[in-house]
Amino acid sequence: MDIDRKNEQIEDLQYKGLKIIQNKDCFCFGMDAVLLSDFVDIRRGDRVLDLCTGVGIVPILLSTRKTPKEIVGIEIMPYVAEMGKRSVVLNGIEDRVEIVCGDIKKAYKLVEGVFDVISVNPPYEKINEKRKSKNEYRVAAKHEVHCTFEDVCRISNRMLKCGGKIFIIHRIGRLAEIFSTMKEYRLEPKRLRFVHPKFEEQPNLVLIEGVKDGREGLKVDPPLFVRDKDGEYTEEIDRIYHRNEV
Amino acid sequence: MDIDRKNEQIEDLQYKGLKIIQNKDCFCFGMDAVLLSDFVDIRRGDRVLDLCTGVGIVPILLSTRKTPKEIVGIEIMPYVAEMGKRSVVLNGIEDRVEIVCGDIKKAYKLVEGVFDVISVNPPYEKINEKRKSKNEYRVAAKHEVHCTFEDVCRISNRMLKCGGKIFIIHRIGRLAEIFSTMKEYRLEPKRLRFVHPKFEEQPNLVLIEGVKDGREGLKVDPPLFVRDKDGEYTEEIDRIYHRNEV
Repeated sequence: MDIDRKNEQIEDLQYKGLKIIQNKDCFCFGMDAVLLSDFVDIRRGDRVLDLCTGVGIVPILLSTRKTPKEIVGIEIMPYVAEMGKRSVVLNGIEDRVEIVCGDIKKAYKLVEGVFDVISVNPPYEKINEKRKSKNEYRVAAKHEVHCTFEDVCRISNRMLKCGGKIFIIHRIGRLAEIFSTMKEYRLEPKRLRFVHPKFEEQPNLVLIEGVKDGREGLKVDPPLFVRDKDGEYTEEIDRIYHRNEV
Repeated sequence: MDIDRKNEQIEDLQYKGLKIIQNKDCFCFGMDAVLLSDFVDIRRGDRVLDLCTGVGIVPILLSTRKTPKEIVGIEIMPYVAEMGKRSVVLNGIEDRVEIVCGDIKKAYKLVEGVFDVISVNPPYEKINEKRKSKNEYRVAAKHEVHCTFEDVCRISNRMLKCGGKIFIIHRIGRLAEIFSTMKEYRLEPKRLRFVHPKFEEQPNLVLIEGVKDGREGLKVDPPLFVRDKDGEYTEEIDRIYHRNEV
């Protein structure tokens, strides 16, 4: 499929001068990546790996945290990774953020067992689910064609230090499988937060924190409502977008 | 340990004239069993099996549903099962409720693969958790000494028809393990409801509906708050207790 580079645009993230390059012919990041970035907990000196990074929105947002030592984003689609690399240069954050083009199932170039934190906003739909798009970029971002949730867990187990944390956003319908697969790869689910599109409506997404080789014991955070009863963004969403100001 | 039969008492469930025999020297049922009974969905002609039935509170409450063909409760502690049997006679519901004394890990006397519905309020604590009581009845009811959650899933897989449903109440801290074990025994989690002791406080319990050999896809019901902001029972709890009026 031909992508027209002329359809690239530089978006101002309106936060600490950050910008990001996207191409509207491809998949553009949504609120999920912003919610995930806010959910990620980073401590001083952490090495952070963002899987399925796309144009690098999560690494770029996380670069504003003062503490990480290194943030690596990995993306399989060469053109998408290349936009991410250019965004890193554009923002002048090469000292702490690197976008790598590669297949997480191989994860070559990356040293295993050294990461303190993994973040991932993976494709939500199984490979056998109906594909609404023939655009290979959108299909790759939404469907598990290049990377299943099991791949995410397998590589996370390999890349994380013992006690390292993984932060995930995913569809609620897959929660049982997510927990089961995380446990299979010794990523113990420790914290859960449901994302409701609207106040008093059912959740559609879930934020999960897991710990490699962690003890059993799950806690549930208060629900995150995106919109209030009147359809307006909630104060928390305003806070998240004020912090990230996308 | 000696149990004094003089400490038995007949409690009026204040619902359709139902009564239940308990002994305050043993474990007495709590709200959990009532919430579970309310959560259980029974269709006309269903065969229902209640595991870890104790004094039979769940089968007795479910006996008021018009539709089940048969409700069997199984309990390992002979004296506790015997109180349950006497409660069945006391209520005159022998035509549809039977309490069986036995070990669910063996489940002798029961025909496999014929049940449409299983309900279970299992021991919440692992065998290695600190035991607060030396009373063997309370320990058996609270700790997995006779029956682990894996035992519950193994026997449920055997006893349920394909497409049969399991309804569980358990501690939220064990949710990841619960999902993982359910999936291992082909009991697909389909519905989840959190129980919050108080409005806007974190949930401590979870109600789960699973389907044997069901398709993946989980839904989350609205939260169940036990008490409102002022510490009073919520309308829903009043409704549940009005229905069951324990």
